[in-house]
Amino acid sequence: MKNTAILLIHCPDKKGIVHAVTDFLFANNGNIIDLDQHVDQDQALFFMRVEWDLTGFSIPKEKVSEFFGTLVGDKFQMKWELHFTSRKTRMAIFVSKMSHCLFDILQRYQSGEWDIEIPLIISNHPNLGYIAERFNIPFEVFPITKATKAEQEAKELELLAHHDIDFIVLARYMQIISADFITHYPNRIINIHHSFLPAFPGAKPYHQAYKRGVKIIGATSHYVTADLDQGPIIAQDIARITHKENVKDLVRKGKDLEKTVLSQAIWKQMQHKILAYNNRTVIF
Amino acid sequence: MKNTAILLIHCPDKKGIVHAVTDFLFANNGNIIDLDQHVDQDQALFFMRVEWDLTGFSIPKEKVSEFFGTLVGDKFQMKWELHFTSRKTRMAIFVSKMSHCLFDILQRYQSGEWDIEIPLIISNHPNLGYIAERFNIPFEVFPITKATKAEQEAKELELLAHHDIDFIVLARYMQIISADFITHYPNRIINIHHSFLPAFPGAKPYHQAYKRGVKIIGATSHYVTADLDQGPIIAQDIARITHKENVKDLVRKGKDLEKTVLSQAIWKQMQHKILAYNNRTVIF
Amino acid sequence: MKNTAILLIHCPDKKGIVHAVTDFLFANNGNIIDLDQHVDQDQALFFMRVEWDLTGFSIPKEKVSEFFGTLVGDKFQMKWELHFTSRKTRMAIFVSKMSHCLFDILQRYQSGEWDIEIPLIISNHPNLGYIAERFNIPFEVFPITKATKAEQEAKELELLAHHDIDFIVLARYMQIISADFITHYPNRIINIHHSFLPAFPGAKPYHQAYKRGVKIIGATSHYVTADLDQGPIIAQDIARITHKENVKDLVRKGKDLEKTVLSQAIWKQMQHKILAYNNRTVIF
Amino acid sequence: MKNTAILLIHCPDKKGIVHAVTDFLFANNGNIIDLDQHVDQDQALFFMRVEWDLTGFSIPKEKVSEFFGTLVGDKFQMKWELHFTSRKTRMAIFVSKMSHCLFDILQRYQSGEWDIEIPLIISNHPNLGYIAERFNIPFEVFPITKATKAEQEAKELELLAHHDIDFIVLARYMQIISADFITHYPNRIINIHHSFLPAFPGAKPYHQAYKRGVKIIGATSHYVTADLDQGPIIAQDIARITHKENVKDLVRKGKDLEKTVLSQAIWKQMQHKILAYNNRTVIF
Repeated sequence: MKNTAILLIHCPDKKGIVHAVTDFLFANNGNIIDLDQHVDQDQALFFMRVEWDLTGFSIPKEKVSEFFGTLVGDKFQMKWELHFTSRKTRMAIFVSKMSHCLFDILQRYQSGEWDIEIPLIISNHPNLGYIAERFNIPFEVFPITKATKAEQEAKELELLAHHDIDFIVLARYMQIISADFITHYPNRIINIHHSFLPAFPGAKPYHQAYKRGVKIIGATSHYVTADLDQGPIIAQDIARITHKENVKDLVRKGKDLEKTVLSQAIWKQMQHKILAYNNRTVIF
Repeated sequence: MKNTAILLIHCPDKKGIVHAVTDFLFANNGNIIDLDQHVDQDQALFFMRVEWDLTGFSIPKEKVSEFFGTLVGDKFQMKWELHFTSRKTRMAIFVSKMSHCLFDILQRYQSGEWDIEIPLIISNHPNLGYIAERFNIPFEVFPITKATKAEQEAKELELLAHHDIDFIVLARYMQIISADFITHYPNRIINIHHSFLPAFPGAKPYHQAYKRGVKIIGATSHYVTADLDQGPIIAQDIARITHKENVKDLVRKGKDLEKTVLSQAIWKQMQHKILAYNNRTVIF
Repeated sequence: MKNTAILLIHCPDKKGIVHAVTDFLFANNGNIIDLDQHVDQDQALFFMRVEWDLTGFSIPKEKVSEFFGTLVGDKFQMKWELHFTSRKTRMAIFVSKMSHCLFDILQRYQSGEWDIEIPLIISNHPNLGYIAERFNIPFEVFPITKATKAEQEAKELELLAHHDIDFIVLARYMQIISADFITHYPNRIINIHHSFLPAFPGAKPYHQAYKRGVKIIGATSHYVTADLDQGPIIAQDIARITHKENVKDLVRKGKDLEKTVLSQAIWKQMQHKILAYNNRTVIF
Repeated sequence: MKNTAILLIHCPDKKGIVHAVTDFLFANNGNIIDLDQHVDQDQALFFMRVEWDLTGFSIPKEKVSEFFGTLVGDKFQMKWELHFTSRKTRMAIFVSKMSHCLFDILQRYQSGEWDIEIPLIISNHPNLGYIAERFNIPFEVFPITKATKAEQEAKELELLAHHDIDFIVLARYMQIISADFITHYPNRIINIHHSFLPAFPGAKPYHQAYKRGVKIIGATSHYVTADLDQGPIIAQDIARITHKENVKDLVRKGKDLEKTVLSQAIWKQMQHKILAYNNRTVIF
């Protein structure tokens, strides 16, 4: 059982940041397990992820944030997140009617590939309820029309808060999330779009790809922002196609990409390895 | 020394086309070396490439086109091209200032990887003349301004005709070809664009890609049409990038893609393995 | 509902084969849907797959084989398989304890991605029975020890014959199939090996790969022959790894490859698009 | 003009290493440009690459090594290399008869893609002398027979020392380097092998690959050790092939891989981003 803490930091670049952070940890008997940093030279921004063992660390867990802020963070105008691995990440899944991503996620969950909690699946259609049932996960249906959208989203938010959800995965959820909803989970809603963005945003990307006659199709996982399919990209992958393949083949091949690329994003997210800024991501 | 003929055919799909073509060859003692066909079911279009040995073929070379047209082609409303491998394909290269694609092409040419003629390199700048000189290939400079474009292109066309050029390769030629020029070489001008189209058309695609924060960059070879970067795609490839890489890294990595993807298109073109229709390509 | 026939042919290369086959179809009012051929020039072998519409075909289904053999096949010393798409392909799955490939296959089956029958899952361990139950597929456990192997395999063969199984998929079945068993399903047992063969055959390929310090891992689907991991390769894919990834990461990443690469082989097999010869495959 | 220093470090893992290194730099007014570290948890080994700006650094260049050793390195039993970017890396190229890698390297060199010195090309055959001449680089021919090998290698070593060569690239050099020679350049001779090792080591890997019927071919750049094709792997890449491609096609496609994969290794080497240990590499 891992007992570590993780700091995700970003701030204006300046001399001495790594030193200050490692000094804070070393002086308090923290053993660094993993440290990764990045400097965006163009924008003079500094990014860092550091994970350390809490065994023997002299600052109590509930005080780490306060101490780090006062002693290091504020001096460098840092924004930071602090996570403890003793707490399992809690993920909610949103689905509609397609089962491939949902099955793929739940298989990883059940087989122990992912050490995570999935307290809740939300859908705008009842179709996939049978899958949730098989895996014994609560499945809540919120049908959405233009008229009911605001009201339904409010209920969803309540439920998500009740379940203490850390982040949301849209596993081919065919419904646009409102800008207001998104503000509750900034850079914490992961979508899978079935093209290599920025090519083919919006509806029916495989049809668009077929029509354009591309030789490569793709999938993109990204954080959801108020601009459709414009959020920070987390992962992308591609598959090669030939003239022999029609739209149906593209859809079939694309599903494999969607599963893999969405899972890659979830894997990074659950380990707190993603930092988003200026519509970009640092993936540690 | 190969002595074969190649037919590239397309026509409305109909019962009996393969039979008619193979009957024509078999009845005249032609031994099929390679046959590939494709049916676009959505549009009911038939495509075929067949290569056969001319040794012992009972119709003389100069009569094959007439005989095939009368006996087969016209009956099926075919459009076809006929090529003889005894004639080496003649390719012209257009360049500007960047040397990586040009060197790559000329190395393949000189080492014998490609069995082809390159009678001519055309450029709008004198910078790469030293490379042409090293490989002993005529290098003609046509500086182009808005005012002189029509006139200079006319001279280029004359020169290309004089050298009996079959197809043109734009090896990072940084100048837009006029619609009129293109009509002289329909689906016979191959461009390399430094992005996976349709993402990032136009200028500075690596800068666009960096700005969008993609995790994959690409390159696309395509036939030039009057619509910039919209022509039929021949080949595409991609490279993975991370947040650690800036625009300069993208440019550097992209060059490798450009070289490879352009060469793949040339390789197919020189073997008459590309059929373009409705802004798509069949690559046999 | 498709009503087509498929011929998979191979024979010594000779003038007139394509013509003879298409003549047979055309003369009997068969409309070719798809035709693909290949010649292995080194060995002078000819391969062909042709699919045609049976609507209006003048030879009755039950006579096609006899007529084709007499009129065409025997004259060219062909070996051929004849399949009718009106009959759904019947696949059996062998598993042990790992669930990822099994779930992936069953999701494709249930969602309708694959139009196939899965009458039977066989395992040497009871662990995955709960999955079969969820998908409502008979699950038969045959524990195998050195002493019982011959007897148990005999029972399995009986069961497979009873269910009229066309081909078998080893979805991470951790038990070597005996040479005798294989003779009942020549080139009809598909295995997934978790490395890019021929690198790292045998046990624990991810451990081997980690130890060798490779930068790429892979997976290979192949037909099972009496020589372990030496059978004809159907599909392969790879994933990139870095020094940051340990054996556990390789196993996790590899699972995604295994799922995809095994499914690609099944997809080709169920459409009768694979021809194996001399320990190689032609994949139409 | 960059004026930075680079430390490449490895040592037994222990609490406080990052802190000690960054403390050394911070206390002496060194601004960290880039820092990357890695811990091999299985073997409890620590690896680090740190690059810092020398402008204003309080320890003079010629004293950095001594000070770092005394104040930090020795305390943690570190092995380290110290490089200054003000000195251009000096690379020698060994070739035989194939030109594709050599042309590719020289194009990168001449176009300024690589900021490096190439004082010398060595060959066991005179064939490629004309290329060296075109790029104005000394070309020395050392024909090698079993009888003359030791003597010729001694002369090569003398010449390499005279030119103060940092590392050697075997650009398809078809001659085995003796174990004695290698001891002079440990982990400083980069070879390109034309397969994805450990598959197909030794001679004629494309022939081996064709014979085995693989669907993927590859190339591997690695440090040369006394065990043929067994040294630490630096980079690998692959290309997909089909049954339609024969050995000649594999060779042609493979050349593109060889060029790219060799260049990737050189790119990392010239930036001092590779650490080799236990027959593995850390690539920062």
